[in-house]
Amino acid sequence: MDQLSERLLARYRIEQGKGFRLADHRPDDDGGIGLDKAQGAKLLPEGVRRLSELQDMLYAQDRWAVLCIFQAMDAAGKDSAIKHVFTGVNPQGCHVVSFKAPSATELDHDFLWRHVQALPSRGQIGIHNRSWYEEVLVARVHPAVVERQKLPPQLMGKNIWDERLEDIAAFERYLARQGVVVLKFFLHVSQEEQRQRFLDRISEPEKNWKFNAADVAERQHWDDYMKAYQAAIRATAAPHAPWYVVPADRKWFTRLVVVAAICRSLEGLGLHYPEVSEADRMALIQAKEALEK
Amino acid sequence: MDQLSERLLARYRIEQGKGFRLADHRPDDDGGIGLDKAQGAKLLPEGVRRLSELQDMLYAQDRWAVLCIFQAMDAAGKDSAIKHVFTGVNPQGCHVVSFKAPSATELDHDFLWRHVQALPSRGQIGIHNRSWYEEVLVARVHPAVVERQKLPPQLMGKNIWDERLEDIAAFERYLARQGVVVLKFFLHVSQEEQRQRFLDRISEPEKNWKFNAADVAERQHWDDYMKAYQAAIRATAAPHAPWYVVPADRKWFTRLVVVAAICRSLEGLGLHYPEVSEADRMALIQAKEALEK
Repeated sequence: MDQLSERLLARYRIEQGKGFRLADHRPDDDGGIGLDKAQGAKLLPEGVRRLSELQDMLYAQDRWAVLCIFQAMDAAGKDSAIKHVFTGVNPQGCHVVSFKAPSATELDHDFLWRHVQALPSRGQIGIHNRSWYEEVLVARVHPAVVERQKLPPQLMGKNIWDERLEDIAAFERYLARQGVVVLKFFLHVSQEEQRQRFLDRISEPEKNWKFNAADVAERQHWDDYMKAYQAAIRATAAPHAPWYVVPADRKWFTRLVVVAAICRSLEGLGLHYPEVSEADRMALIQAKEALEK
Repeated sequence: MDQLSERLLARYRIEQGKGFRLADHRPDDDGGIGLDKAQGAKLLPEGVRRLSELQDMLYAQDRWAVLCIFQAMDAAGKDSAIKHVFTGVNPQGCHVVSFKAPSATELDHDFLWRHVQALPSRGQIGIHNRSWYEEVLVARVHPAVVERQKLPPQLMGKNIWDERLEDIAAFERYLARQGVVVLKFFLHVSQEEQRQRFLDRISEPEKNWKFNAADVAERQHWDDYMKAYQAAIRATAAPHAPWYVVPADRKWFTRLVVVAAICRSLEGLGLHYPEVSEADRMALIQAKEALEK
Protein backbone atom coordinates (compact mmCIF):
# COMPACT_ATOMS: atom_id res chain seq x y z
CA MET A 1 0.00 0.00 0.00
CA ASP A 2 3.02 2.30 -0.14
CA GLN A 3 1.66 3.59 -3.44
CA LEU A 4 -1.06 5.39 -1.47
CA SER A 5 1.34 7.85 0.07
CA GLU A 6 0.38 10.51 2.55
CA ARG A 7 1.04 13.04 -0.19
CA LEU A 8 -1.48 11.36 -2.47
CA LEU A 9 -4.08 10.97 0.29
CA ALA A 10 -3.68 14.64 1.16
CA ARG A 11 -4.91 15.41 -2.37
CA TYR A 12 -8.29 13.93 -1.49
CA ARG A 13 -8.49 14.96 2.16
CA ILE A 14 -10.30 18.23 2.95
CA GLU A 15 -9.55 19.47 6.47
CA GLN A 16 -10.46 23.07 5.88
CA GLY A 17 -13.48 23.73 3.76
CA LYS A 18 -13.18 27.41 2.97
CA GLY A 19 -12.99 27.92 -0.76
CA PHE A 20 -13.42 24.19 -1.50
CA ARG A 21 -14.59 23.55 -5.06
CA LEU A 22 -15.87 20.20 -6.19
CA ALA A 23 -14.89 21.17 -9.73
CA ASP A 24 -11.23 20.92 -8.69
CA HIS A 25 -11.66 17.17 -8.13
CA ARG A 26 -11.82 14.74 -11.02
CA PRO A 27 -14.02 11.66 -10.62
CA ASP A 28 -11.78 9.71 -13.03
CA ASP A 29 -8.53 10.47 -11.17
CA ASP A 30 -6.55 7.27 -10.64
CA GLY A 31 -3.82 8.85 -8.57
CA GLY A 32 -1.27 8.58 -11.38
CA ILE A 33 0.49 5.79 -9.51
CA GLY A 34 0.80 3.57 -12.55
CA LEU A 35 -1.71 0.93 -11.46
CA ASP A 36 -4.42 -0.64 -13.57
CA LYS A 37 -7.63 -2.27 -12.37
CA ALA A 38 -6.08 -5.73 -11.88
CA GLN A 39 -3.03 -4.41 -10.04
CA GLY A 40 -5.20 -2.19 -7.87
CA ALA A 41 -7.44 -5.10 -6.95
CA LYS A 42 -4.40 -7.17 -5.98
CA LEU A 43 -3.20 -4.42 -3.67
CA LEU A 44 -6.46 -4.12 -1.74
CA PRO A 45 -6.05 -7.21 0.51
CA GLU A 46 -2.85 -5.70 1.85
CA GLY A 47 -4.79 -2.66 2.99
CA VAL A 48 -7.60 -4.74 4.46
CA ARG A 49 -5.05 -6.81 6.41
CA ARG A 50 -3.50 -3.67 7.85
CA LEU A 51 -6.93 -2.29 8.74
CA SER A 52 -7.74 -5.56 10.45
CA GLU A 53 -4.58 -5.39 12.59
CA LEU A 54 -5.32 -1.82 13.58
CA GLN A 55 -8.91 -2.65 14.41
CA ASP A 56 -7.75 -5.40 16.75
CA MET A 57 -5.67 -2.89 18.71
CA LEU A 58 -8.50 -0.36 18.67
CA TYR A 59 -10.76 -3.00 20.21
CA ALA A 60 -8.21 -4.09 22.82
CA GLN A 61 -7.40 -0.53 23.83
CA ASP A 62 -11.10 0.36 24.10
CA ARG A 63 -10.62 4.13 24.18
CA TRP A 64 -11.34 5.45 20.69
CA ALA A 65 -14.36 4.90 18.48
CA VAL A 66 -14.18 5.39 14.71
CA LEU A 67 -17.11 6.62 12.65
CA CYS A 68 -16.81 6.24 8.86
CA ILE A 69 -19.53 8.10 7.01
CA PHE A 70 -20.20 7.24 3.36
CA GLN A 71 -22.09 9.63 1.15
CA ALA A 72 -22.50 9.58 -2.60
CA MET A 73 -24.83 9.77 -5.55
CA ASP A 74 -26.52 6.51 -6.51
CA ALA A 75 -24.28 3.88 -8.08
CA ALA A 76 -21.11 5.65 -6.97
CA GLY A 77 -20.04 2.47 -5.21
CA LYS A 78 -20.80 3.03 -1.51
CA ASP A 79 -22.07 -0.50 -0.93
CA SER A 80 -19.28 -2.13 -2.84
CA ALA A 81 -16.61 0.01 -1.17
CA ILE A 82 -17.96 -0.97 2.26
CA LYS A 83 -18.09 -4.62 1.19
CA HIS A 84 -14.56 -4.75 -0.16
CA VAL A 85 -12.85 -2.62 2.46
CA PHE A 86 -14.43 -4.14 5.56
CA THR A 87 -14.80 -7.77 4.55
CA GLY A 88 -11.93 -9.32 6.44
CA VAL A 89 -12.26 -7.07 9.46
CA ASN A 90 -13.62 -8.77 12.60
CA PRO A 91 -17.36 -8.00 12.65
CA GLN A 92 -17.27 -8.00 16.46
CA GLY A 93 -15.48 -4.67 16.20
CA CYS A 94 -17.11 -3.25 13.11
CA HIS A 95 -20.74 -2.47 12.46
CA VAL A 96 -22.51 -1.14 9.35
CA VAL A 97 -25.75 0.86 9.60
CA SER A 98 -27.61 1.88 6.46
CA PHE A 99 -29.93 4.83 6.82
CA LYS A 100 -33.03 4.83 4.64
CA ALA A 101 -36.16 6.99 4.85
CA PRO A 102 -36.93 7.76 8.51
CA SER A 103 -39.79 6.06 10.34
CA ALA A 104 -42.71 7.94 11.90
CA THR A 105 -41.07 7.63 15.33
CA GLU A 106 -37.80 8.95 13.96
CA LEU A 107 -39.55 11.89 12.30
CA ASP A 108 -41.02 12.76 15.68
CA HIS A 109 -37.48 13.48 16.94
CA ASP A 110 -34.66 15.84 16.05
CA PHE A 111 -32.79 14.63 12.96
CA LEU A 112 -29.64 13.50 14.80
CA TRP A 113 -31.63 11.23 17.11
CA ARG A 114 -31.59 8.05 15.03
CA HIS A 115 -27.97 8.56 14.00
CA VAL A 116 -26.78 9.08 17.58
CA GLN A 117 -28.30 5.77 18.64
CA ALA A 118 -26.23 4.05 15.98
CA LEU A 119 -22.91 5.66 16.95
CA PRO A 120 -20.04 3.23 17.52
CA SER A 121 -18.96 2.57 21.09
CA ARG A 122 -15.32 2.74 22.20
CA GLY A 123 -13.18 0.15 20.51
CA GLN A 124 -15.55 -0.10 17.54
CA ILE A 125 -15.59 1.03 13.93
CA GLY A 126 -19.04 2.24 12.94
CA ILE A 127 -19.80 2.52 9.24
CA HIS A 128 -22.74 4.71 8.35
CA ASN A 129 -24.04 4.14 4.84
CA ARG A 130 -25.64 7.57 4.44
CA SER A 131 -25.82 9.74 7.52
CA TRP A 132 -26.98 13.02 9.03
CA TYR A 133 -25.62 14.64 5.86
CA GLU A 134 -28.79 13.56 4.07
CA GLU A 135 -30.40 16.34 6.11
CA VAL A 136 -28.47 18.91 4.07
CA LEU A 137 -28.44 16.94 0.78
CA VAL A 138 -31.66 15.17 -0.20
CA ALA A 139 -33.55 17.45 2.23
CA ARG A 140 -32.08 20.49 0.53
CA VAL A 141 -32.83 19.27 -2.98
CA HIS A 142 -36.35 18.08 -2.13
CA PRO A 143 -38.25 20.48 0.16
CA ALA A 144 -40.90 17.79 0.73
CA VAL A 145 -38.37 15.90 2.86
CA VAL A 146 -38.20 18.76 5.34
CA GLU A 147 -41.95 19.18 5.34
CA ARG A 148 -42.36 15.59 6.55
CA GLN A 149 -40.24 16.45 9.59
CA LYS A 150 -43.10 18.34 11.25
CA LEU A 151 -40.93 21.24 12.34
CA PRO A 152 -42.80 24.23 13.72
CA PRO A 153 -43.18 26.57 10.69
CA GLN A 154 -41.36 29.45 12.39
CA LEU A 155 -38.20 27.29 12.52
CA MET A 156 -38.09 26.73 8.77
CA GLY A 157 -36.42 30.01 7.92
CA LYS A 158 -34.15 30.92 5.06
CA ASN A 159 -31.03 30.13 7.12
CA ILE A 160 -32.08 26.55 7.75
CA TRP A 161 -29.24 25.03 5.67
CA ASP A 162 -26.51 27.16 7.19
CA GLU A 163 -27.89 26.39 10.64
CA ARG A 164 -28.01 22.67 10.00
CA LEU A 165 -24.44 22.69 8.71
CA GLU A 166 -23.34 24.68 11.75
CA ASP A 167 -25.11 22.19 14.03
CA ILE A 168 -23.53 19.20 12.28
CA ALA A 169 -20.06 20.76 12.48
CA ALA A 170 -20.52 21.48 16.19
CA PHE A 171 -21.75 17.96 16.85
CA GLU A 172 -18.79 16.41 15.05
CA ARG A 173 -16.42 18.61 17.06
CA TYR A 174 -18.12 17.32 20.21
CA LEU A 175 -17.72 13.73 19.02
CA ALA A 176 -14.02 14.27 18.35
CA ARG A 177 -13.62 15.56 21.90
CA GLN A 178 -15.34 12.41 23.16
CA GLY A 179 -12.85 10.19 21.36
CA VAL A 180 -14.90 9.46 18.25
CA VAL A 181 -12.73 9.72 15.14
CA VAL A 182 -15.01 10.99 12.39
CA LEU A 183 -14.03 10.24 8.77
CA LYS A 184 -16.32 11.30 5.97
CA PHE A 185 -16.11 9.85 2.48
CA PHE A 186 -17.77 11.41 -0.50
CA LEU A 187 -17.47 8.97 -3.39
CA HIS A 188 -17.26 11.35 -6.29
CA VAL A 189 -18.64 9.73 -9.43
CA SER A 190 -19.24 11.45 -12.76
CA GLN A 191 -22.68 11.72 -14.24
CA GLU A 192 -21.57 9.78 -17.31
CA GLU A 193 -20.14 6.92 -15.23
CA GLN A 194 -23.37 6.78 -13.25
CA ARG A 195 -25.29 6.47 -16.55
CA GLN A 196 -23.11 3.52 -17.59
CA ARG A 197 -23.62 1.79 -14.25
CA PHE A 198 -27.39 2.24 -14.44
CA LEU A 199 -27.32 0.71 -17.94
CA ASP A 200 -25.34 -2.23 -16.55
CA ARG A 201 -27.92 -2.71 -13.82
CA ILE A 202 -30.60 -2.92 -16.48
CA SER A 203 -28.76 -5.20 -18.88
CA GLU A 204 -27.22 -7.64 -16.39
CA PRO A 205 -29.94 -9.81 -14.82
CA GLU A 206 -28.04 -10.36 -11.55
CA LYS A 207 -27.83 -6.59 -11.13
CA ASN A 208 -31.49 -5.89 -11.90
CA TRP A 209 -32.42 -5.87 -8.21
CA LYS A 210 -30.23 -2.85 -7.68
CA PHE A 211 -32.03 -0.80 -10.29
CA ASN A 212 -34.62 1.70 -9.22
CA ALA A 213 -36.36 3.85 -11.83
CA ALA A 214 -36.57 6.69 -9.31
CA ASP A 215 -32.75 6.87 -9.29
CA VAL A 216 -32.82 7.85 -12.95
CA ALA A 217 -35.28 10.64 -12.22
CA GLU A 218 -32.90 11.95 -9.54
CA ARG A 219 -30.32 12.60 -12.27
CA GLN A 220 -32.18 15.76 -13.26
CA HIS A 221 -31.22 17.20 -9.85
CA TRP A 222 -27.53 16.43 -10.35
CA ASP A 223 -26.33 20.03 -10.22
CA ASP A 224 -28.39 20.77 -7.13
CA TYR A 225 -26.87 17.77 -5.40
CA MET A 226 -23.35 18.83 -6.35
CA LYS A 227 -24.00 22.30 -4.96
CA ALA A 228 -25.37 20.79 -1.76
CA TYR A 229 -22.33 18.50 -1.40
CA GLN A 230 -19.97 21.37 -2.00
CA ALA A 231 -21.72 23.50 0.63
CA ALA A 232 -21.67 20.62 3.11
CA ILE A 233 -17.97 19.97 2.62
CA ARG A 234 -17.16 23.66 2.88
CA ALA A 235 -19.02 24.01 6.17
CA THR A 236 -17.99 20.81 7.91
CA ALA A 237 -14.47 19.85 6.83
CA ALA A 238 -12.14 20.06 9.81
CA PRO A 239 -8.88 18.47 10.95
CA HIS A 240 -10.85 16.46 13.52
CA ALA A 241 -13.54 15.45 11.02
CA PRO A 242 -12.04 15.52 7.52
CA TRP A 243 -13.86 14.86 4.29
CA TYR A 244 -12.28 12.62 1.71
CA VAL A 245 -13.43 13.44 -1.80
CA VAL A 246 -12.67 10.07 -3.34
CA PRO A 247 -12.53 9.67 -7.12
CA ALA A 248 -15.22 7.09 -7.84
CA ASP A 249 -15.20 6.43 -11.57
CA ARG A 250 -12.75 3.57 -10.96
CA LYS A 251 -13.99 1.35 -8.18
CA TRP A 252 -10.63 -0.30 -7.57
CA PHE A 253 -9.07 3.10 -6.91
CA THR A 254 -11.95 4.25 -4.67
CA ARG A 255 -11.42 1.25 -2.41
CA LEU A 256 -7.67 1.76 -2.16
CA VAL A 257 -8.12 5.38 -1.15
CA VAL A 258 -10.76 4.51 1.44
CA VAL A 259 -8.76 1.74 3.10
CA ALA A 260 -5.56 3.79 3.04
CA ALA A 261 -7.32 6.80 4.55
CA ILE A 262 -8.78 4.79 7.43
CA CYS A 263 -5.45 3.06 8.12
CA ARG A 264 -3.62 6.38 8.05
CA SER A 265 -6.07 7.84 10.54
CA LEU A 266 -5.87 4.85 12.89
CA GLU A 267 -2.08 4.89 12.70
CA GLY A 268 -2.16 8.48 13.90
CA LEU A 269 -3.89 7.47 17.14
CA GLY A 270 -0.86 5.74 18.58
CA LEU A 271 -2.87 2.57 19.20
CA HIS A 272 -1.27 -0.17 21.25
CA TYR A 273 -2.38 -3.22 23.17
CA PRO A 274 -3.08 -2.27 26.80
CA GLU A 275 0.10 -2.29 28.81
CA VAL A 276 0.49 -4.84 31.55
CA SER A 277 1.35 -3.28 34.89
CA GLU A 278 3.78 -4.88 37.34
CA ALA A 279 0.85 -6.03 39.47
CA ASP A 280 -0.88 -7.47 36.37
CA ARG A 281 2.32 -9.30 35.47
CA MET A 282 2.53 -10.84 38.91
CA ALA A 283 -1.08 -11.96 38.59
CA LEU A 284 -0.29 -13.52 35.20
CA ILE A 285 2.65 -15.44 36.71
CA GLN A 286 0.55 -16.66 39.62
CA ALA A 287 -2.22 -17.73 37.29
CA LYS A 288 0.29 -19.62 35.17
CA GLU A 289 1.60 -21.44 38.23
CA ALA A 290 -1.89 -22.36 39.34
CA LEU A 291 -2.76 -23.68 35.88
CA GLU A 292 0.39 -25.71 35.65
CA LYS A 293 0.01 -27.38 39.06
CA MET B 1 -51.31 32.22 39.25
CA ASP B 2 -51.35 35.93 38.40
CA GLN B 3 -49.05 36.42 41.40
CA LEU B 4 -46.25 34.80 39.42
CA SER B 5 -45.99 37.69 37.01
CA GLU B 6 -43.63 37.80 34.07
CA ARG B 7 -41.71 40.45 35.98
CA LEU B 8 -41.19 38.08 38.91
CA LEU B 9 -40.28 35.12 36.69
CA ALA B 10 -37.74 37.27 34.89
CA ARG B 11 -35.94 37.64 38.22
CA TYR B 12 -35.17 33.93 38.18
CA ARG B 13 -34.70 33.42 34.44
CA ILE B 14 -31.15 33.64 33.08
CA GLU B 15 -31.08 34.04 29.30
CA GLN B 16 -27.62 35.47 29.05
CA GLY B 17 -25.01 34.02 31.33
CA LYS B 18 -22.21 36.52 31.09
CA GLY B 19 -21.42 37.89 34.52
CA PHE B 20 -23.99 35.66 36.22
CA ARG B 21 -23.34 35.28 39.95
CA LEU B 22 -25.06 32.66 42.04
CA ALA B 23 -24.43 34.88 45.08
CA ASP B 24 -26.96 37.36 43.67
CA HIS B 25 -29.72 34.77 44.14
CA ARG B 26 -31.17 34.00 47.56
CA PRO B 27 -32.33 30.44 48.23
CA ASP B 28 -34.91 31.72 50.73
CA ASP B 29 -36.50 34.23 48.36
CA ASP B 30 -40.29 33.87 48.41
CA GLY B 31 -40.95 36.38 45.69
CA GLY B 32 -42.33 38.95 48.11
CA ILE B 33 -45.86 38.30 46.82
CA GLY B 34 -47.39 38.07 50.26
CA LEU B 35 -48.10 34.31 50.20
CA ASP B 36 -47.43 31.83 52.97
CA LYS B 37 -46.94 28.10 52.63
CA ALA B 38 -50.65 27.24 52.85
CA GLN B 39 -51.70 29.92 50.37
CA GLY B 40 -48.91 28.91 47.99
CA ALA B 41 -49.96 25.27 48.14
CA LYS B 42 -53.56 26.26 47.35
CA LEU B 43 -52.40 28.16 44.28
CA LEU B 44 -50.45 25.29 42.76
CA PRO B 45 -53.42 23.30 41.34
CA GLU B 46 -54.34 26.33 39.25
CA GLY B 47 -50.89 26.20 37.64
CA VAL B 48 -51.04 22.46 37.11
CA ARG B 49 -54.45 22.82 35.45
CA ARG B 50 -53.12 25.45 33.08
CA LEU B 51 -50.08 23.29 32.31
CA SER B 52 -52.37 20.38 31.60
CA GLU B 53 -54.42 22.42 29.11
CA LEU B 54 -51.30 23.61 27.33
CA GLN B 55 -49.88 20.09 27.21
CA ASP B 56 -53.05 18.87 25.53
CA MET B 57 -52.59 21.44 22.75
CA LEU B 58 -48.90 20.63 22.50
CA TYR B 59 -49.81 16.98 21.97
CA ALA B 60 -52.53 17.72 19.43
CA GLN B 61 -50.36 20.09 17.44
CA ASP B 62 -47.47 17.60 17.42
CA ARG B 63 -44.79 20.08 16.34
CA TRP B 64 -42.85 21.13 19.44
CA ALA B 65 -41.18 19.01 22.08
CA VAL B 66 -40.42 20.38 25.55
CA LEU B 67 -37.42 19.29 27.59
CA CYS B 68 -37.41 20.28 31.26
CA ILE B 69 -34.07 19.65 32.92
CA PHE B 70 -33.88 19.56 36.72
CA GLN B 71 -30.56 19.99 38.47
CA ALA B 72 -29.86 20.59 42.14
CA MET B 73 -27.93 19.60 45.20
CA ASP B 74 -29.36 16.66 47.15
CA ALA B 75 -32.58 17.36 49.05
CA ALA B 76 -33.22 20.57 47.13
CA GLY B 77 -36.61 19.19 46.11
CA LYS B 78 -36.19 17.96 42.52
CA ASP B 79 -38.28 14.84 43.02
CA SER B 80 -41.00 16.60 44.93
CA ALA B 81 -41.14 19.48 42.45
CA ILE B 82 -41.55 16.99 39.59
CA LYS B 83 -44.19 15.09 41.54
CA HIS B 84 -46.27 18.15 42.43
CA VAL B 85 -45.94 20.04 39.15
CA PHE B 86 -46.59 17.15 36.77
CA THR B 87 -49.09 15.07 38.71
CA GLY B 88 -52.29 15.99 36.93
CA VAL B 89 -50.72 16.23 33.49
CA ASN B 90 -51.65 13.40 31.10
CA PRO B 91 -48.77 10.89 31.32
CA GLN B 92 -49.31 10.00 27.66
CA GLY B 93 -47.75 13.35 26.81
CA CYS B 94 -45.27 13.64 29.64
CA HIS B 95 -42.38 11.38 30.54
CA VAL B 96 -39.84 11.52 33.40
CA VAL B 97 -36.36 10.03 33.05
CA SER B 98 -34.01 9.93 36.05
CA PHE B 99 -30.34 9.67 35.25
CA LYS B 100 -28.19 7.78 37.73
CA ALA B 101 -24.64 6.48 37.38
CA PRO B 102 -24.03 5.38 33.77
CA SER B 103 -23.89 1.70 32.80
CA ALA B 104 -20.86 0.07 31.21
CA THR B 105 -22.53 0.32 27.80
CA GLU B 106 -23.27 3.99 28.36
CA LEU B 107 -19.68 4.68 29.45
CA ASP B 108 -18.57 3.14 26.15
CA HIS B 109 -20.28 6.01 24.31
CA ASP B 110 -20.01 9.79 24.22
CA PHE B 111 -21.70 11.37 27.24
CA LEU B 112 -24.71 12.75 25.36
CA TRP B 113 -25.60 9.31 24.00
CA ARG B 114 -27.87 8.08 26.78
CA HIS B 115 -29.51 11.48 27.17
CA VAL B 116 -30.28 11.80 23.46
CA GLN B 117 -32.11 8.48 23.47
CA ALA B 118 -34.36 9.83 26.20
CA LEU B 119 -35.22 13.09 24.42
CA PRO B 120 -38.94 13.84 24.14
CA SER B 121 -40.58 13.41 20.76
CA ARG B 122 -42.77 16.09 19.20
CA GLY B 123 -45.91 16.76 21.19
CA GLN B 124 -44.29 15.53 24.41
CA ILE B 125 -42.91 17.04 27.58
CA GLY B 126 -39.74 15.24 28.65
CA ILE B 127 -38.59 15.73 32.23
CA HIS B 128 -34.96 14.89 32.88
CA ASN B 129 -34.18 14.42 36.57
CA ARG B 130 -30.48 15.19 36.30
CA SER B 131 -29.04 15.48 32.82
CA TRP B 132 -25.95 16.05 30.68
CA TYR B 133 -25.10 18.82 33.13
CA GLU B 134 -23.80 16.18 35.53
CA GLU B 135 -20.89 15.95 33.06
CA VAL B 136 -19.79 19.44 34.13
CA LEU B 137 -20.93 19.19 37.75
CA VAL B 138 -20.25 15.90 39.55
CA ALA B 139 -17.64 15.06 36.91
CA ARG B 140 -15.89 18.38 37.57
CA VAL B 141 -15.96 17.99 41.35
CA HIS B 142 -14.88 14.33 41.29
CA PRO B 143 -12.17 13.60 38.70
CA ALA B 144 -12.74 9.86 39.19
CA VAL B 145 -16.03 10.25 37.30
CA VAL B 146 -14.21 11.36 34.17
CA GLU B 147 -11.61 8.64 34.55
CA ARG B 148 -14.35 6.00 34.36
CA GLN B 149 -15.35 7.39 30.96
CA LYS B 150 -12.35 5.78 29.28
CA LEU B 151 -11.51 8.84 27.20
CA PRO B 152 -8.19 8.69 25.36
CA PRO B 153 -5.75 10.48 27.73
CA GLN B 154 -4.79 13.09 25.12
CA LEU B 155 -8.41 14.33 25.12
CA MET B 156 -8.45 15.06 28.86
CA GLY B 157 -6.74 18.44 28.62
CA LYS B 158 -7.04 21.47 30.82
CA ASN B 159 -9.81 22.95 28.66
CA ILE B 160 -12.08 19.96 29.10
CA TRP B 161 -14.73 21.85 31.13
CA ASP B 162 -14.89 24.83 28.78
CA GLU B 163 -15.10 22.43 25.85
CA ARG B 164 -17.88 20.40 27.42
CA LEU B 165 -19.83 23.54 28.21
CA GLU B 166 -19.34 24.76 24.65
CA ASP B 167 -20.53 21.39 23.32
CA ILE B 168 -23.59 21.39 25.55
CA ALA B 169 -24.49 24.95 24.53
CA ALA B 170 -24.13 24.05 20.85
CA PHE B 171 -26.24 20.93 21.26
CA GLU B 172 -29.02 22.85 23.00
CA ARG B 173 -28.96 25.45 20.22
CA TYR B 174 -29.37 22.58 17.75
CA LEU B 175 -32.28 21.18 19.75
CA ALA B 176 -33.98 24.57 19.78
CA ARG B 177 -33.67 24.70 15.99
CA GLN B 178 -35.28 21.27 15.82
CA GLY B 179 -38.31 22.44 17.77
CA VAL B 180 -37.24 21.20 21.21
CA VAL B 181 -37.95 23.85 23.84
CA VAL B 182 -35.22 23.47 26.46
CA LEU B 183 -35.95 24.74 29.99
CA LYS B 184 -33.36 24.24 32.71
CA PHE B 185 -34.19 24.47 36.39
CA PHE B 186 -31.56 24.81 39.07
CA LEU B 187 -33.29 24.40 42.41
CA HIS B 188 -31.17 26.64 44.55
CA VAL B 189 -31.20 25.42 48.16
CA SER B 190 -29.06 26.76 50.99
CA GLN B 191 -26.58 24.57 52.77
CA GLU B 192 -28.39 25.11 56.08
CA GLU B 193 -31.77 24.12 54.62
CA GLN B 194 -30.19 20.99 53.16
CA ARG B 195 -28.85 20.14 56.64
CA GLN B 196 -32.35 20.45 58.12
CA ARG B 197 -33.83 18.25 55.40
CA PHE B 198 -31.19 15.58 55.95
CA LEU B 199 -31.99 15.65 59.67
CA ASP B 200 -35.68 15.20 58.82
CA ARG B 201 -34.83 12.23 56.65
CA ILE B 202 -33.05 10.65 59.58
CA SER B 203 -35.66 11.43 62.24
CA GLU B 204 -38.81 10.64 60.25
CA PRO B 205 -39.10 6.87 59.64
CA GLU B 206 -41.08 7.24 56.39
CA LYS B 207 -38.27 9.42 55.01
CA ASN B 208 -35.43 7.12 56.05
CA TRP B 209 -35.32 5.48 52.61
CA LYS B 210 -34.33 8.78 51.07
CA PHE B 211 -31.30 9.16 53.30
CA ASN B 212 -27.89 8.25 51.97
CA ALA B 213 -24.83 8.76 54.16
CA ALA B 214 -22.78 9.56 51.06
CA ASP B 215 -24.95 12.65 50.51
CA VAL B 216 -23.68 14.08 53.79
CA ALA B 217 -20.08 13.53 52.69
CA GLU B 218 -20.84 15.47 49.49
CA ARG B 219 -21.53 18.55 51.61
CA GLN B 220 -17.81 19.14 52.00
CA HIS B 221 -17.67 19.82 48.24
CA TRP B 222 -20.46 22.42 48.45
CA ASP B 223 -18.36 25.35 47.28
CA ASP B 224 -16.93 23.38 44.38
CA TYR B 225 -20.43 22.45 43.28
CA MET B 226 -21.60 26.05 43.50
CA LYS B 227 -18.65 27.13 41.36
CA ALA B 228 -19.43 24.41 38.84
CA TYR B 229 -23.10 25.42 38.70
CA GLN B 230 -22.19 29.04 38.25
CA ALA B 231 -19.80 28.20 35.40
CA ALA B 232 -22.42 25.99 33.75
CA ILE B 233 -25.11 28.65 33.92
CA ARG B 234 -22.72 31.30 32.63
CA ALA B 235 -21.76 29.20 29.62
CA THR B 236 -25.12 27.76 28.63
CA ALA B 237 -27.85 30.27 29.47
CA ALA B 238 -29.49 31.47 26.27
CA PRO B 239 -32.84 32.85 25.17
CA HIS B 240 -33.57 29.52 23.44
CA ALA B 241 -32.42 27.48 26.46
CA PRO B 242 -32.82 29.58 29.61
CA TRP B 243 -31.82 28.59 33.11
CA TYR B 244 -34.21 29.24 35.95
CA VAL B 245 -32.41 29.70 39.24
CA VAL B 246 -35.33 28.77 41.47
CA PRO B 247 -35.23 29.62 45.19
CA ALA B 248 -35.54 26.23 46.87
CA ASP B 249 -35.60 26.82 50.62
CA ARG B 250 -39.40 26.98 50.46
CA LYS B 251 -40.76 24.05 48.48
CA TRP B 252 -44.18 25.62 47.92
CA PHE B 253 -42.51 28.57 46.21
CA THR B 254 -40.17 26.40 44.15
CA ARG B 255 -43.14 24.56 42.67
CA LEU B 256 -45.04 27.74 41.85
CA VAL B 257 -42.05 29.16 40.00
CA VAL B 258 -41.48 25.94 38.05
CA VAL B 259 -45.06 25.53 36.91
CA ALA B 260 -45.37 29.23 36.06
CA ALA B 261 -42.14 29.15 34.05
CA ILE B 262 -43.22 26.15 31.99
CA CYS B 263 -46.67 27.61 31.36
CA ARG B 264 -45.15 30.94 30.34
CA SER B 265 -42.86 29.21 27.90
CA LEU B 266 -45.64 27.09 26.38
CA GLU B 267 -47.87 30.14 26.07
CA GLY B 268 -45.15 31.78 24.00
CA LEU B 269 -45.30 29.03 21.38
CA GLY B 270 -48.68 30.08 20.04
CA LEU B 271 -50.07 26.56 20.52
CA HIS B 272 -53.45 25.75 19.06
CA TYR B 273 -55.43 22.69 18.12
CA PRO B 274 -54.75 21.77 14.49
CA GLU B 275 -57.00 23.73 12.18
CA VAL B 276 -59.58 21.91 10.16
CA SER B 277 -59.36 22.62 6.43
CA GLU B 278 -62.40 23.03 4.21
CA ALA B 279 -61.84 19.52 2.82
CA ASP B 280 -61.52 18.11 6.34
CA ARG B 281 -64.76 19.82 7.31
CA MET B 282 -66.56 18.27 4.37
CA ALA B 283 -65.23 14.88 5.40
CA LEU B 284 -66.49 15.46 8.94
CA ILE B 285 -69.97 16.31 7.64
CA GLN B 286 -70.05 13.25 5.39
CA ALA B 287 -68.90 11.04 8.25
CA LYS B 288 -71.62 12.46 10.47
CA GLU B 289 -74.27 11.70 7.83
CA ALA B 290 -73.00 8.15 7.42
CA LEU B 291 -73.05 7.59 11.17
CA GLU B 292 -76.54 8.98 11.53
CA LYS B 293 -78.06 6.88 8.74
